[in-house]
Amino acid sequence: MNWKGNQPMKKTEQLKQMINSPNLEFIMEAHSGLSAAIAEEAGFKGIWASGLSISAAMGVRDNNEASWTQVLDALEFMSDATSVPILLDGDTGYGNFNNARRLVKKLEQRQIAGVCIEDKLFPKTNSFIHAKAQPLADADEFCGKIKAMKDTQSDEDFVVVARVEAFITGWGLEEALRRAEAYRQAGADAVLIHSKRSDIAEIESFMKEWGGRLPVVIVPTKYYTTPTVRFQELGISLVIWANHNLRASIEAMKKVSGQIFQEKSLAHVENGVATLEEVFRLQRADELQAAEQKYLPSTDKDSDERS
Amino acid sequence: MNWKGNQPMKKTEQLKQMINSPNLEFIMEAHSGLSAAIAEEAGFKGIWASGLSISAAMGVRDNNEASWTQVLDALEFMSDATSVPILLDGDTGYGNFNNARRLVKKLEQRQIAGVCIEDKLFPKTNSFIHAKAQPLADADEFCGKIKAMKDTQSDEDFVVVARVEAFITGWGLEEALRRAEAYRQAGADAVLIHSKRSDIAEIESFMKEWGGRLPVVIVPTKYYTTPTVRFQELGISLVIWANHNLRASIEAMKKVSGQIFQEKSLAHVENGVATLEEVFRLQRADELQAAEQKYLPSTDKDSDERS
Amino acid sequence: MNWKGNQPMKKTEQLKQMINSPNLEFIMEAHSGLSAAIAEEAGFKGIWASGLSISAAMGVRDNNEASWTQVLDALEFMSDATSVPILLDGDTGYGNFNNARRLVKKLEQRQIAGVCIEDKLFPKTNSFIHAKAQPLADADEFCGKIKAMKDTQSDEDFVVVARVEAFITGWGLEEALRRAEAYRQAGADAVLIHSKRSDIAEIESFMKEWGGRLPVVIVPTKYYTTPTVRFQELGISLVIWANHNLRASIEAMKKVSGQIFQEKSLAHVENGVATLEEVFRLQRADELQAAEQKYLPSTDKDSDERS
Amino acid sequence: MNWKGNQPMKKTEQLKQMINSPNLEFIMEAHSGLSAAIAEEAGFKGIWASGLSISAAMGVRDNNEASWTQVLDALEFMSDATSVPILLDGDTGYGNFNNARRLVKKLEQRQIAGVCIEDKLFPKTNSFIHAKAQPLADADEFCGKIKAMKDTQSDEDFVVVARVEAFITGWGLEEALRRAEAYRQAGADAVLIHSKRSDIAEIESFMKEWGGRLPVVIVPTKYYTTPTVRFQELGISLVIWANHNLRASIEAMKKVSGQIFQEKSLAHVENGVATLEEVFRLQRADELQAAEQKYLPSTDKDSDERS
Repeated sequence: MNWKGNQPMKKTEQLKQMINSPNLEFIMEAHSGLSAAIAEEAGFKGIWASGLSISAAMGVRDNNEASWTQVLDALEFMSDATSVPILLDGDTGYGNFNNARRLVKKLEQRQIAGVCIEDKLFPKTNSFIHAKAQPLADADEFCGKIKAMKDTQSDEDFVVVARVEAFITGWGLEEALRRAEAYRQAGADAVLIHSKRSDIAEIESFMKEWGGRLPVVIVPTKYYTTPTVRFQELGISLVIWANHNLRASIEAMKKVSGQIFQEKSLAHVENGVATLEEVFRLQRADELQAAEQKYLPSTDKDSDERS
Repeated sequence: MNWKGNQPMKKTEQLKQMINSPNLEFIMEAHSGLSAAIAEEAGFKGIWASGLSISAAMGVRDNNEASWTQVLDALEFMSDATSVPILLDGDTGYGNFNNARRLVKKLEQRQIAGVCIEDKLFPKTNSFIHAKAQPLADADEFCGKIKAMKDTQSDEDFVVVARVEAFITGWGLEEALRRAEAYRQAGADAVLIHSKRSDIAEIESFMKEWGGRLPVVIVPTKYYTTPTVRFQELGISLVIWANHNLRASIEAMKKVSGQIFQEKSLAHVENGVATLEEVFRLQRADELQAAEQKYLPSTDKDSDERS
Repeated sequence: MNWKGNQPMKKTEQLKQMINSPNLEFIMEAHSGLSAAIAEEAGFKGIWASGLSISAAMGVRDNNEASWTQVLDALEFMSDATSVPILLDGDTGYGNFNNARRLVKKLEQRQIAGVCIEDKLFPKTNSFIHAKAQPLADADEFCGKIKAMKDTQSDEDFVVVARVEAFITGWGLEEALRRAEAYRQAGADAVLIHSKRSDIAEIESFMKEWGGRLPVVIVPTKYYTTPTVRFQELGISLVIWANHNLRASIEAMKKVSGQIFQEKSLAHVENGVATLEEVFRLQRADELQAAEQKYLPSTDKDSDERS
Repeated sequence: MNWKGNQPMKKTEQLKQMINSPNLEFIMEAHSGLSAAIAEEAGFKGIWASGLSISAAMGVRDNNEASWTQVLDALEFMSDATSVPILLDGDTGYGNFNNARRLVKKLEQRQIAGVCIEDKLFPKTNSFIHAKAQPLADADEFCGKIKAMKDTQSDEDFVVVARVEAFITGWGLEEALRRAEAYRQAGADAVLIHSKRSDIAEIESFMKEWGGRLPVVIVPTKYYTTPTVRFQELGISLVIWANHNLRASIEAMKKVSGQIFQEKSLAHVENGVATLEEVFRLQRADELQAAEQKYLPSTDKDSDERS
């Protein structure tokens, strides 16, 4: 948690500072209250509420199968469990400008610090799945959506990131630049340039032409071999580690489920998993025990529940 | 999935068969659609929807901080993602007999195969936390709850398991037997005898006196070193591996979050986590692609959305 | 409630019979558990879960401002409070074919008997608001949606009604017929022909050409002066009284709120509103009191909650 | 809406002012976004989110059959639809001190201005139903709950009202005074003295002894014939008109459903119910149309959704 004097800094302000800081910053994917708390404990200054991860954890697809309020419910648990800002991977805003501005209001109520929307059509498909078939949103319509969102936010620091899918859909650099500039003029606080190449060529080409007009956010899931120092050299503002808590948990759960099923025993599993005490610690059981001391009558709890 | 002729067997019937079968059976903890699907893929014939795990995943405590309908929403995703039966760890039934019977109706609508209720008071505390302070429910009141639940179920195979907390709260064998018998007479389909000892002494003492009057379910989280064959010898019906998907995922997420935070890179992480393709496979992305072929117009998807 | 032998008939079967019966049938709008129960008590054999009414009751617009799962939650209360079938006014199916087929699964879980989808685009606008600007869905895409829904339903009697908006958007009879026929071939169980004229001319022109190929549903909100016998003569199957519980409640609440505000007293209001006893009766308080006799311990309720 | 300079006054501050003002103030029951908006339009400076009304509208009983988060969802719609403060009828706080303080956090996120909790046990029963059987909460435990709630609120103006059920359960004046004083010392912002007598005798006896130690709130549902001036003379701060929007809507819906069912026609109904235009006005359709002008591309809406 950041502090401003002796007050914790608003989550929105924390996120805005990260995006506008001269340093390269990093946020970590989470998909639940638990994974968000773990990401914060690891040291991350912010959380990426991944649409892919949240849907995968629910057991549904990243195609708006979960309703936007079901996503919102997951976000509320994440926000309550953390003190660092959360940036929501908000798909298309879940509809048109009206749905998107309604989303902003709902996010602010839950202390979500910002939202990233992408210029695709509802219902969306994950960018890494058969992307050629995915049409882009009309740029003007998307700009209207950004404007509506910025006009709606009541906290001036709430962050709207515009995600440009032009590289993903094969439209190339020119379209990426044209859209990024349009989104900037519409009021976006940052642009996210997405690429599914395994190298950083597209991002490089964009950064050269972009000239720092607005902070740039990237998601190096596919070009993960590119050294991070390169992102810094290019002037990237924020890197999103987009789905690795989810993917680590999948690997671990497959392994532990498989092993217990085969061995019909916990004996060889116990030492490889978090202890029960660690579960209770992450749930902050100690705070509740202290609160019980404070708020429950001091006499025997068994006998005093009624007069 | 089990089959009955060429029809998949109802989930309730699957669970009832497991509980009543002469074999020792096993069910695996899950707390989300994803973890439930993984447990099924590992080979488990049933799922334990753990209250501790579901609350921990949400980032709240196992003290009814999440409302019962929030738990229900999580269960619905789990049920939709699996074809094996789910047994809910239903705390106290979330209130009195009226809340408990309402719960049964809601579970049946979501194809949850059964629920285990425990003889504690609402709001509950996890059995492994300072258990001495936890009073037990009145046995008569608890029997009324069981009766109400059994009278409410519309599917005759829906399973109600009565969890006896007498050992946990230090009341000993006599009370455990008295309650188990009362719950049996009230209509429970099985009893879950819970123990927090690191050996199996309490369970053994119970099984000796119980004489197979009703199937017995156990949760060997604390006495995990006891060889599984011993459970079989004692005549246990069902073993619940109660929280190990959760605990494995915690360990894995702490590790991956820590490593990415330290290294500011995914380079050494990528090979240790599930691939993106594996994520998509678990989400059954292929089924959607096949369905798109079937249900979307065959012409260019870009141009045909409207007349 | 209808009966089949000594079993209550499934809600889906009740609705299917109404639609396929030679008689003119009627269903009444409801927007909450309460209004649905009132409509059933009035004698109606079915309920229209109006999108306009449900959104208006929530205080939001009929433009998919409420998420589809929020609508689903309202429907679940309505279904639980009634024994007659509910036909959902399901907008566009809340997205593409994949969202629509997911909706069917969710509706079946909640014993909703059928859904009507309209050939508009998501997010929708109410048909009586500036309709010219509203584009229609591509007919082929809409047919794919119907097919996907019919392939998904697990209960053969679940009803899918295809709502034709061709008259609303000014496309005229030919397009209405073309679409109705396409939707019929795609598997719809009935077509709803919507008109915003204050006379029945459009409906008449359609019925003449249609020739009973599939049952026809109408919503005479705007042409309410047309005598009902005329609907019968034309061979209409089902009439929807689409929003009158909502509109009556608005009028009544405006009046009572205004009067109490002015008079600062309930004295002149009490006799014009339902009694508290009537509220309790509608909530079926008596059933709970009887259940308490049955399921709560017979001794003094104050002292027996714990051992 | 009240203003403070050129800023709208916070809802919490509005409510606190009403409670602490020397004038007798009034708030009106609502149970949905729609009824709340109507109450505000009628002139009321605040809303009573009645537990009885909200549950009745859902079609369930006032016995915590709806989960507390389902009530919260209803409240969120109500809060979004209004600019005057809402005081929630929060039953027992839905559990112990921990549930109650969690509730406060959730209410603040949704801009609910305050909550009234009552000294009964969970799950609750409506005060006007067979009240003798209803035990009271232990006063010390209830005071701990109040303290926990007051310690949790982040907005200093959030209001906690402690409802004293001593008269309802037949404990009499002495117990009512003892509890009211204890709740005052625990930090309550006001006490609600409830009575089910048809005269004001109990309230009078309380007010005489109370001596204005804390503002007093009343609910004259049963003693509605008492002239309001009498409340003023006694020094009451706030009067709750507790369920009359609900009861008016029940009467109206029964009448309109019955009439339409009998007449099989809307012809004689149309003029007695709110117009469709009034429905759209209450939904603020005009704001959306204006926003469409502002945020949707000016060219033909049909052709510009994609590039």
